[in-house]
Amino acid sequence: MSIRVGIMGYGNLGRGIECAIKHNPDMELAAVFTRRAPETVKILTETAKVCHVSEAEKMKDEIDVLIMCGGSATDLPEQTPKYVQWFNVVDSFDTHARIPEHFANVDKAASETGHIGIISVGWDPGMFSLNRMYANAILTNGNDYTFWGKGVSQGHSDAIRRIDGVKDGKQYTIPVESALEAVRRGENPDLTARQKHTRECFVVAEEGADLARIEEEIKTMPNYFADYDTTVHFITEEELKRDHSGIPHGGFVIRTGKTGWNDENSHVIEYSLKLDSNPEFTSSVIVAYARAAYRMSKEGMTGCKTVFDVAPAYLSALDGAELRKHLL
Amino acid sequence: MSIRVGIMGYGNLGRGIECAIKHNPDMELAAVFTRRAPETVKILTETAKVCHVSEAEKMKDEIDVLIMCGGSATDLPEQTPKYVQWFNVVDSFDTHARIPEHFANVDKAASETGHIGIISVGWDPGMFSLNRMYANAILTNGNDYTFWGKGVSQGHSDAIRRIDGVKDGKQYTIPVESALEAVRRGENPDLTARQKHTRECFVVAEEGADLARIEEEIKTMPNYFADYDTTVHFITEEELKRDHSGIPHGGFVIRTGKTGWNDENSHVIEYSLKLDSNPEFTSSVIVAYARAAYRMSKEGMTGCKTVFDVAPAYLSALDGAELRKHLL
Repeated sequence: MSIRVGIMGYGNLGRGIECAIKHNPDMELAAVFTRRAPETVKILTETAKVCHVSEAEKMKDEIDVLIMCGGSATDLPEQTPKYVQWFNVVDSFDTHARIPEHFANVDKAASETGHIGIISVGWDPGMFSLNRMYANAILTNGNDYTFWGKGVSQGHSDAIRRIDGVKDGKQYTIPVESALEAVRRGENPDLTARQKHTRECFVVAEEGADLARIEEEIKTMPNYFADYDTTVHFITEEELKRDHSGIPHGGFVIRTGKTGWNDENSHVIEYSLKLDSNPEFTSSVIVAYARAAYRMSKEGMTGCKTVFDVAPAYLSALDGAELRKHLL
Repeated sequence: MSIRVGIMGYGNLGRGIECAIKHNPDMELAAVFTRRAPETVKILTETAKVCHVSEAEKMKDEIDVLIMCGGSATDLPEQTPKYVQWFNVVDSFDTHARIPEHFANVDKAASETGHIGIISVGWDPGMFSLNRMYANAILTNGNDYTFWGKGVSQGHSDAIRRIDGVKDGKQYTIPVESALEAVRRGENPDLTARQKHTRECFVVAEEGADLARIEEEIKTMPNYFADYDTTVHFITEEELKRDHSGIPHGGFVIRTGKTGWNDENSHVIEYSLKLDSNPEFTSSVIVAYARAAYRMSKEGMTGCKTVFDVAPAYLSALDGAELRKHLL
């Protein structure tokens, strides 16, 4: 029996989930739910249905885990607590400041109805959080550093595109190599935003737009760019499409710390990701946690969980004996 | 109430455990058990007892978790199943091929007596295993690589010291940088032992010994050195003591894999450690898992566990809400 998965929302993340399910033979895609007219949504999996979101509740017995692929700003805060009433769910809620509130809402609905909801799954929050947590538990006397990139920031790209005279644009966040190296050497530097990351923008301007004014608006934009060394390149629409249509990302989680009776020994724990496709990698993490949600639910567990609460073995298609033999 | 920890065996690892407990304020060292005459063993913790190993069973109500610090060859296969009858235990059993057998023995004794035994804790097996497992669950279509070093191999250093005419010696295992880079580029190379690691030996010879013969014996030693590019340096006893008395180690776990409907995107997950002191880092991992053993036992869990079976949150002194707020 395969684990029957549903996808709620079919954007970049939903398509990534679909691809990840193809890579996990113990799982099958049962249905994609969309707010659009279902007949207008083409998916890749021939055996799966496309249904309107209003039909989801009726299909609760045909789906083992529903993966929430909406946005963190408005979709997930409403959808995850709602759908966990009928399904085991996994989401990738990534508004760090609102996680405690989201957890409480999902936990209440999941506990009352006997389901599992695993929230904030992906790589940050997700695998990066896990690595921060493991490293903190091991090296209790130390310092944490997270660097992002090189990768495309959707939020910063959107900010560029809102500027008058900008037709399209992409923004890359790039870690500062010398800062990374200082951290790895255990120097415990205090780093400002500017010292940790640079920002590189590729901008397609409207014909006749004032390029100097656009560049100035980008570089001085508060919160997004003003605190960073920012480079702006004006390119053609063709160049943007040819060279910048991917969604790569990645980053580094580093903890340095001391051990010994008198803190005489230093250690560095580093976890890094280099991803060609941010949504496809995020999806691959989510699908592994969907397997965990299914199994934990089968064992009678309920309520809201995060990556911190899920024993690693639940993620793997291998059983305990195989894991111990081949991966321990 | 602190978690009361016992240490069974007071060598490098036992001393590392003692130091790690000092770095975890929710834990206290209750007793060190030794096969030596207790009055001859000096420990660092003034509040802890030193007891003969024969007294351990009597102290079962004074200790929440007993950490087994013996060797994997003969001590742990006998001691861990024995002491788990009376205590929750954690060990660092690292003979990979015998893990299934050790697991079965510990599981039987632990289940029958209602204790928890977490085996094979440290960094390899341990954190490296965990990272292999997480990466395999995420990137199901990919390749695994583990590199060790730069670090001191105890087994290889011992092998050098058994050669006639050798007074003392230290061996470093060093990953081949070009192989590491090829793996990171996603080239999925098939690597021989020689292509992955080099071996560097620092040897103190007896006066008048035949250095050429010693060097030849090292470089051609089957299993240990013959399959590697090995460098031998003859140094004085003073130099060995001054420059090579540390026990550094570390390494890299890398998984590369493909995602996408047609495997069109590549990803690299890398976990690395750079450790000044192998036993102190191993100890820091073990002490975090001792906390987990204590908590899991309090919740009524029993039997043998590995790092795959322990939900990450059990390792941290922070509670769930704090973890979600600060580390997720």
